[in-house]
Amino acid sequence: MTIRILGLDPGLRITGWGIIECEGSRLSHIDHGIVQSKDGEDLPIRLVSLYTQLIDIIQQYTPDEAAVEETFVNKNPLSALKLGIARGVVLLAPAQAGLIVGEYSANKVKKSVVGVGHADKNQVAMMVSRLLPKSGGVVKDAADALAVAICHAHHRTFFQKVRMA
Amino acid sequence: MTIRILGLDPGLRITGWGIIECEGSRLSHIDHGIVQSKDGEDLPIRLVSLYTQLIDIIQQYTPDEAAVEETFVNKNPLSALKLGIARGVVLLAPAQAGLIVGEYSANKVKKSVVGVGHADKNQVAMMVSRLLPKSGGVVKDAADALAVAICHAHHRTFFQKVRMA
Repeated sequence: MTIRILGLDPGLRITGWGIIECEGSRLSHIDHGIVQSKDGEDLPIRLVSLYTQLIDIIQQYTPDEAAVEETFVNKNPLSALKLGIARGVVLLAPAQAGLIVGEYSANKVKKSVVGVGHADKNQVAMMVSRLLPKSGGVVKDAADALAVAICHAHHRTFFQKVRMA
Repeated sequence: MTIRILGLDPGLRITGWGIIECEGSRLSHIDHGIVQSKDGEDLPIRLVSLYTQLIDIIQQYTPDEAAVEETFVNKNPLSALKLGIARGVVLLAPAQAGLIVGEYSANKVKKSVVGVGHADKNQVAMMVSRLLPKSGGVVKDAADALAVAICHAHHRTFFQKVRMA
């Protein structure tokens, strides 16, 4: 059975998204990109823009499941608040569209894609290109989104095996 | 002209809401309450529940404008992140429904309702009951939501006067 997964890397200014398909352990790249909201605009307007763009992507690509990278909690509470605001909307959109939404820590994503939990962004992007050769040149934010989709693909397969055992 | 205002005090577990009407400087209480999401449930499910309940309130009471209290930024980044997640969804719901959404700091709300910026919660609740006699016994979270609605009523009147001058 082919499962289509939407991976999301939340941010108020830039949210990365990536769509992959997995059939057992075989992964294939469907599409990826970023959605942006303008710095100067009022926060509620920016959130509507973020939400609407995500709903459009979900309607266009009809994923079966979604995976969101857990936000890195900055030491600065104000930055953490801003990240949370974006994260709330990024979690809501696929859940509101009826998808199961998995959450994975940055370390779990890196471990799943690169093999170690403390890989840097470039290593993640490189491994994403290797695991999904058709993805071509992936911009940084979309690479993280594809990485969390890959992580979800690995873990859902694992859970399926456990369930079948 | 009568303007109906929805005030919101965001929280993941409890979000307070209050509806008032203002006609010039005359305020009247329409309704208030809280929406809750269950502690044990998955975060995306909780956010859908929060969003859906807020959209229901907006559809039931058809407010013209909304006002949200700016989240107090805790020193703990993880608490700030959680507050942000709820705040993102609470800002999105009225904005997505097409309402103008004003944001006011807790100090501005207190100053507007009690007269001083550092009033405590009980003072705010007492003044809300005095300004909106029909509100009856208001629970704490809904009192804050009514207070931010009152704050918005004061400030929008002020802006209208400035515009007319």
